[in-house]
Amino acid sequence: MNDSVMMAELTWPEFKARVDEGAVVFLPLGATEQHGPHMALNVDVVLPTGVCERVARNVGGLVAPCVPYGYKSQPRSGGGEAFPGTISLDANTFSLVVRDVVRGLGHKGVRKLVLVIGHFENAWPAVEGLDLGLRELRRDGISDVQAMRLEYWDFVRRATLDRLFPDGFPGTELEHASLLETSLMLLLRPDLVDMAKVPDDGPAKFPTFDRWPVPEGFVPASGVLARAEKATAEKGEWLMADHVALITEAVKAEFKL
Amino acid sequence: MNDSVMMAELTWPEFKARVDEGAVVFLPLGATEQHGPHMALNVDVVLPTGVCERVARNVGGLVAPCVPYGYKSQPRSGGGEAFPGTISLDANTFSLVVRDVVRGLGHKGVRKLVLVIGHFENAWPAVEGLDLGLRELRRDGISDVQAMRLEYWDFVRRATLDRLFPDGFPGTELEHASLLETSLMLLLRPDLVDMAKVPDDGPAKFPTFDRWPVPEGFVPASGVLARAEKATAEKGEWLMADHVALITEAVKAEFKL
Amino acid sequence: MNDSVMMAELTWPEFKARVDEGAVVFLPLGATEQHGPHMALNVDVVLPTGVCERVARNVGGLVAPCVPYGYKSQPRSGGGEAFPGTISLDANTFSLVVRDVVRGLGHKGVRKLVLVIGHFENAWPAVEGLDLGLRELRRDGISDVQAMRLEYWDFVRRATLDRLFPDGFPGTELEHASLLETSLMLLLRPDLVDMAKVPDDGPAKFPTFDRWPVPEGFVPASGVLARAEKATAEKGEWLMADHVALITEAVKAEFKL
Amino acid sequence: MNDSVMMAELTWPEFKARVDEGAVVFLPLGATEQHGPHMALNVDVVLPTGVCERVARNVGGLVAPCVPYGYKSQPRSGGGEAFPGTISLDANTFSLVVRDVVRGLGHKGVRKLVLVIGHFENAWPAVEGLDLGLRELRRDGISDVQAMRLEYWDFVRRATLDRLFPDGFPGTELEHASLLETSLMLLLRPDLVDMAKVPDDGPAKFPTFDRWPVPEGFVPASGVLARAEKATAEKGEWLMADHVALITEAVKAEFKL
Amino acid sequence: MNDSVMMAELTWPEFKARVDEGAVVFLPLGATEQHGPHMALNVDVVLPTGVCERVARNVGGLVAPCVPYGYKSQPRSGGGEAFPGTISLDANTFSLVVRDVVRGLGHKGVRKLVLVIGHFENAWPAVEGLDLGLRELRRDGISDVQAMRLEYWDFVRRATLDRLFPDGFPGTELEHASLLETSLMLLLRPDLVDMAKVPDDGPAKFPTFDRWPVPEGFVPASGVLARAEKATAEKGEWLMADHVALITEAVKAEFKL
Amino acid sequence: MNDSVMMAELTWPEFKARVDEGAVVFLPLGATEQHGPHMALNVDVVLPTGVCERVARNVGGLVAPCVPYGYKSQPRSGGGEAFPGTISLDANTFSLVVRDVVRGLGHKGVRKLVLVIGHFENAWPAVEGLDLGLRELRRDGISDVQAMRLEYWDFVRRATLDRLFPDGFPGTELEHASLLETSLMLLLRPDLVDMAKVPDDGPAKFPTFDRWPVPEGFVPASGVLARAEKATAEKGEWLMADHVALITEAVKAEFKL
Repeated sequence: MNDSVMMAELTWPEFKARVDEGAVVFLPLGATEQHGPHMALNVDVVLPTGVCERVARNVGGLVAPCVPYGYKSQPRSGGGEAFPGTISLDANTFSLVVRDVVRGLGHKGVRKLVLVIGHFENAWPAVEGLDLGLRELRRDGISDVQAMRLEYWDFVRRATLDRLFPDGFPGTELEHASLLETSLMLLLRPDLVDMAKVPDDGPAKFPTFDRWPVPEGFVPASGVLARAEKATAEKGEWLMADHVALITEAVKAEFKL
Repeated sequence: MNDSVMMAELTWPEFKARVDEGAVVFLPLGATEQHGPHMALNVDVVLPTGVCERVARNVGGLVAPCVPYGYKSQPRSGGGEAFPGTISLDANTFSLVVRDVVRGLGHKGVRKLVLVIGHFENAWPAVEGLDLGLRELRRDGISDVQAMRLEYWDFVRRATLDRLFPDGFPGTELEHASLLETSLMLLLRPDLVDMAKVPDDGPAKFPTFDRWPVPEGFVPASGVLARAEKATAEKGEWLMADHVALITEAVKAEFKL
Repeated sequence: MNDSVMMAELTWPEFKARVDEGAVVFLPLGATEQHGPHMALNVDVVLPTGVCERVARNVGGLVAPCVPYGYKSQPRSGGGEAFPGTISLDANTFSLVVRDVVRGLGHKGVRKLVLVIGHFENAWPAVEGLDLGLRELRRDGISDVQAMRLEYWDFVRRATLDRLFPDGFPGTELEHASLLETSLMLLLRPDLVDMAKVPDDGPAKFPTFDRWPVPEGFVPASGVLARAEKATAEKGEWLMADHVALITEAVKAEFKL
Repeated sequence: MNDSVMMAELTWPEFKARVDEGAVVFLPLGATEQHGPHMALNVDVVLPTGVCERVARNVGGLVAPCVPYGYKSQPRSGGGEAFPGTISLDANTFSLVVRDVVRGLGHKGVRKLVLVIGHFENAWPAVEGLDLGLRELRRDGISDVQAMRLEYWDFVRRATLDRLFPDGFPGTELEHASLLETSLMLLLRPDLVDMAKVPDDGPAKFPTFDRWPVPEGFVPASGVLARAEKATAEKGEWLMADHVALITEAVKAEFKL
Repeated sequence: MNDSVMMAELTWPEFKARVDEGAVVFLPLGATEQHGPHMALNVDVVLPTGVCERVARNVGGLVAPCVPYGYKSQPRSGGGEAFPGTISLDANTFSLVVRDVVRGLGHKGVRKLVLVIGHFENAWPAVEGLDLGLRELRRDGISDVQAMRLEYWDFVRRATLDRLFPDGFPGTELEHASLLETSLMLLLRPDLVDMAKVPDDGPAKFPTFDRWPVPEGFVPASGVLARAEKATAEKGEWLMADHVALITEAVKAEFKL
Repeated sequence: MNDSVMMAELTWPEFKARVDEGAVVFLPLGATEQHGPHMALNVDVVLPTGVCERVARNVGGLVAPCVPYGYKSQPRSGGGEAFPGTISLDANTFSLVVRDVVRGLGHKGVRKLVLVIGHFENAWPAVEGLDLGLRELRRDGISDVQAMRLEYWDFVRRATLDRLFPDGFPGTELEHASLLETSLMLLLRPDLVDMAKVPDDGPAKFPTFDRWPVPEGFVPASGVLARAEKATAEKGEWLMADHVALITEAVKAEFKL
């Protein structure tokens, strides 16, 4: 039997067998978004998919196809919509996609579902999509779906952050295209990282508000919000180890696996 | 410089450079849908992406990330929504995704766009999404986007069909998960095909109407609508050669490349 | 008692009595669309309504009011939106109309429903509207509605096509405003046909793709996609006889009348 | 040349010629709604279409196809949604239909438009649809469309009402399926009226509020809100004469014809 | 215990206790709309909230927060959207707000609900919102919500109108920003009325149709549709007494309190 | 002249005069949400409105009516939708309200706009609503609107937090109905706070993920996420002073006042 955890790589009888056994389904929610001059546009697809794949292996789960277009990039967390290559969905569109996929999975017998945010801006429209999907499922007579929603980067040990940022962790929002994401990409897709192109125009200094239109110079010209030059694949391994171990633990605990 | 044609694998400055040069962008529109007991659920993602990649190389184009969830599978063309593993979007959701991606590409300077249908049922909601996207672009002052929309399987020579179907071609609709798709998968992702599991309960005999609810036995239990047992990677090569050559030719002619 | 099969011509107690008896309701889905310089804009209303009326008489059914505005005309099947007189709905609008009418009929006790496509482009948004309507009905506790969806022109015998096209049938898509539709209009509303104005700029030669914007000369200037000059009312009778007989037969078989 | 004022009965070149000459287009907005045990469900289609046709002849205008499904019937003005045969649209659906038709007419060159309400409940969603349609047209660069929106029954002389209701006019809302509508139907479609079935359970006595769910006995069981037994075709002629004369006058004045 | 009838001023346990006791909830639906040069933009918030508060005290009910943005002002009833300060919602937006609030209240146990229109134009989108909310509640298994919808100004005795308008009552529509509303504001918020600025350019003389674009001079330049100079707080008291007494009586009768 | 900064308390000529002078408009976005057993449901309306009013006075601005229903309360930031009294809007509904109000203000000449979040969960749908509103305004030819979006609680000096939380600040998310909000309410509406009812079941200990359905005990039964017993009006004054001073400063700087 096919032992892939990628749902897309199963035949339908294989998918059915896994779901009948109670497989947890992970839905990574990504984006096509600038990640600096040194990384490809698919960082927010590669990373959550990679995390999901490893956790799914740990818990006998499946990874549904990653949604590759996300909610609009915001200047303070992703550089904003003005960058070339950032192609985004309206919030309603994104939420409807999540709603429909959640509804579809529920109709196919999935009862344990984990939405894994791979793009900061997806968090809220994903909440709404999940809420709408579960609401529709209840109206269709399916009321026993259990779900989690998480950002993978929140699953990291304090000690790891201390090793990674000896001078103090600047916080996840500024980490766009910076040390954490770059390290994980060096681990998973080093062919899509060019460390020679890591910029040095960060870190961004953002005010405590959003601004329309985005003022000249509000965002570093490179699109990198903090600093990435110290990224290494080894650091990516530290991070990935934490993400996978802690998410695995949480999923097992919540779903009593 | 990165020579990938996959947009997702470019950095934003690379994407910008290609678009500034006038690159054609191909948007494959796929699905997560049963394709018989012998093929994975991602056939409608793998095949149009594979075609797009080859054509993009021929014309100096780019391939945008494939939309991996499609419009609802219909019994007479894809077996229908009842099969395990088929996870689909409402028509409005799908059209809004296409609208938003088209609008986003247009705002980023793309002026030559090709929507490549990889899942029969996507054809119409893709038309609507493209129409809505172009309408919004015009309202945003961008009225010079040129677009094509095509089903890749329509680009095949008569002679090739005759070689493939010495007893006569049954038509594209019945070809779901059958000889054509299986041959192309054997070419592109043989690891996702198990010829030992090709069923023999087809071909389907459909009436000239749709039916709700879908009657017992309306669709072959395997989900394969015609016959797949004669599929080979070589036949996949014949098909791919036609698809790539003819689409390349059409794109060059239409966009005067 | 009023013996009209047109639902709109019944009083509400008459409608109720018919539905209580289990009447099949036919919903024709039309358009207001150019049909060449020789026919009126209402061809796609007159023809499906005429077919429905005759079939309804055969099966003790009713014909709901035809939706007179359809989904957007496409260049390769209806000449496209650029023609004067073609007034169309967005896909979502059209699907919502179908959804609401289906839901309304279901709430009024209709349990056998046939959607009859009178305009090629309506086919897919009608599928979606029907799917949405049945979904809502199930959520309202009504899960025993049976439905069919069909294009009336698919119900024709091979022998009839051979009589009509001694040189070979070019296929239904090109038949827009051509021999078939013109013959049927000559049968039903000869006052709305002027054979002296039948153009001779067809048949269209379409590529296997759609194109935005529609290139100059893509569509015959007349809006007639094939040829109409050999249309006669007698041929319309042959066609109507087939449409009515075969649809009657299918409806009786499916709904066990 | 075809001298019909019904847009649906014109060829596209005829439609174009009329619009090029500046024809006013009338869009009747109807319903499929119970009108008592003595009249057919299509009263709200027949009457506004009949009025539009006559006014269009007076002003060289055209009548677009009547929208045959209206906004939900309300108990105090149409008996409510509970009656058999009343099949209605959600407000948003109805407004989108109006929006799309208005937008389509504007794109085809129509610059003088009259929405004629034939069903009381359509008034507000028609306002919204017209507003949305004109807003979209402005965004498409078309800002010179002039429009009127009217209920045809408001165009009646005081003297006529006095003749019709020697004991005092009860007001238009209660007139559902009553003397006015019945008289006009006797004029236009006497075959769809059965005066022998005129009920005598009215007039309704409504409170000054709406009530959900509709209480038992809130609406006369017949669905006739006032009294219809004195309806005659002659009275229908008086009414029609007023409607046509006064609307013609208003349209000519507003559009400076 | 907190004895406020304003729901917003209760803690959640207090709200729960009231709802558990069967409290009627009143939802005022207001607007931010011009009301002449002599009154503030919040007339349609202040008045229905004031009426609701008094009725709620009479019946042991609660007043939910007033929706302060209403459906688009119409020239013939509110002066229209062109006036400074009039900020309105699309019909669909307004109906969705009502739907969501109704659904939320139903989910929280409210079973007796009164929508109180404080802005003429809200009437219809409120009907739709209530209908959609109740539909969703039924799909969520809650089918015993009872509701009323009313315009507070309809609850006035004939004798009071005769006292107020010795020369005859011109009808509620023209009363925008005129004697009735001004008198009630003088009663409730005299600080927001400046009788010295009451204009004398009314009353408006409206035709029996709407007109787009609104012609020059169609609406009095002041935005006051009738006359307000005779408004007094005492007259406001007469009106308020009627509104409160008659609505109280109706609510008690309908909900059997 | 009326010197209120509350837009709703101005007449339309007063509103126009202020806008003509370039007034900044503040739009508070609130909620009707449980805030523990010791505070009323309107905390998220009272606080942002109070902040806006003071800032508006500083900058010659106006405060638009607060939207009193917010996006769905989340367990980890507001206790969640299960609490009595929490009445929320779907994300799309909330965004459409913001879109329509932003569009309306833009059409009325407002060119400097500040959205002030008073309810954590509103932040993202407000971003979307603002983005949609500005997009529509651009399509309407208005492209010079400048906007800010902020959460008022982010505008506080480090020193103030240190005074308020000598043992360390737990972060804004947990502050729901806790020391900060309670102190501000004691300042602005002490009548709506009952310190005797401050619960002691917090602080909540939340995991780094969301969970559906919300597990038993996930949220403190009181709905207070941290601790409120040390709240005082004096602390509310410290906070308010910071909020007003820092927001005033930011607004002046951004809009060059």
